[in-house]
Amino acid sequence: MSMLGLKLETDPRWARLVQENIPALLTDHAWCEQKAASNAVSTITRFPEHLDLVKALTRIAVEEIEHFGMVVEKIEARGWKLGFEEKDPYIGELSKFIKRGGDRPAQLVDRLLLSAMIEARSCERFKMLSQRLSDEDLRVFYHDLMVSEAEHYTTFLGLARKYAGRIDVEARWAEFLAFESQIIQSYGKNEAVHG
Amino acid sequence: MSMLGLKLETDPRWARLVQENIPALLTDHAWCEQKAASNAVSTITRFPEHLDLVKALTRIAVEEIEHFGMVVEKIEARGWKLGFEEKDPYIGELSKFIKRGGDRPAQLVDRLLLSAMIEARSCERFKMLSQRLSDEDLRVFYHDLMVSEAEHYTTFLGLARKYAGRIDVEARWAEFLAFESQIIQSYGKNEAVHG
Repeated sequence: MSMLGLKLETDPRWARLVQENIPALLTDHAWCEQKAASNAVSTITRFPEHLDLVKALTRIAVEEIEHFGMVVEKIEARGWKLGFEEKDPYIGELSKFIKRGGDRPAQLVDRLLLSAMIEARSCERFKMLSQRLSDEDLRVFYHDLMVSEAEHYTTFLGLARKYAGRIDVEARWAEFLAFESQIIQSYGKNEAVHG
Repeated sequence: MSMLGLKLETDPRWARLVQENIPALLTDHAWCEQKAASNAVSTITRFPEHLDLVKALTRIAVEEIEHFGMVVEKIEARGWKLGFEEKDPYIGELSKFIKRGGDRPAQLVDRLLLSAMIEARSCERFKMLSQRLSDEDLRVFYHDLMVSEAEHYTTFLGLARKYAGRIDVEARWAEFLAFESQIIQSYGKNEAVHG
């Protein structure tokens, strides 16, 4: 059975692939944290009228940048380099599902559900890394981050429900989960958090 | 005499203008912090090969987002609203001075000097607010932030010197200061941190 509502578990072959290229995983992971921080800031910028949302996402943005710094320290401690940022095709595909038009509550709910979705999948991937990587320090690291991703997932879903107005968040979330289970089938083939 | 090498002090009439519209100041200030965080992240994204730079700018990005959150709390405590982000014409004008082409060290040094310049002017403006606002809580707040801006200024200038290679940082910094003293003459006329 899957975590946080996800319909499809990651194939353990993905973890074996990652094990062979930890430097690539860590560079990709660092930029995932940066992208998550930037996304939280972007949501703040679009919806400043909701102060509770702004405060919750500010805390998340701070944590994501702190996590970026922690990943950079793991890279440095191993004598590796932080590579350049690259696009995340999984997030790109998932983003196509959110409503760009429509009223503001619908746009906000979709942004928050997209963030919850990414946190859920990242959490599931980190759990697998915490169980399967050979580097014990990284296993502990990914366990701690898995907990943090689960908290962020809960925050995003809670905010979506709080600001839903007349939108049926549970129905929309079910649509997100179904869509994600379709696209994730093409992944699991490279050494990236959402690869 | 001026602070941190600045050639022109802000006219105290700016502080009197701001005093009449503190809600506008706080909204503008919150977004200044957000822009500063985003700018630090952008520099990290462009120059990931320098791990010391990445680590220093990660700390600054975290602090700027924390400051954003602190300004939001000041707004909320007064029962006001966070308005929408707007462009900062001062930063826009100043940004035209930096080299977009050229080799990577020159681009990096210019980005860092631009950041140092903005921190220096913000520091000078915050000092004036810490001395002249009628709200004591905000006077203390701006005093604390003035100290933080001065530290960031020192960090940015230090990084520019560290990664300068063959570039004469002191000469380039003098050019920045001269340019800033030209453009700042048109400002001081609205209720914004760099207004």
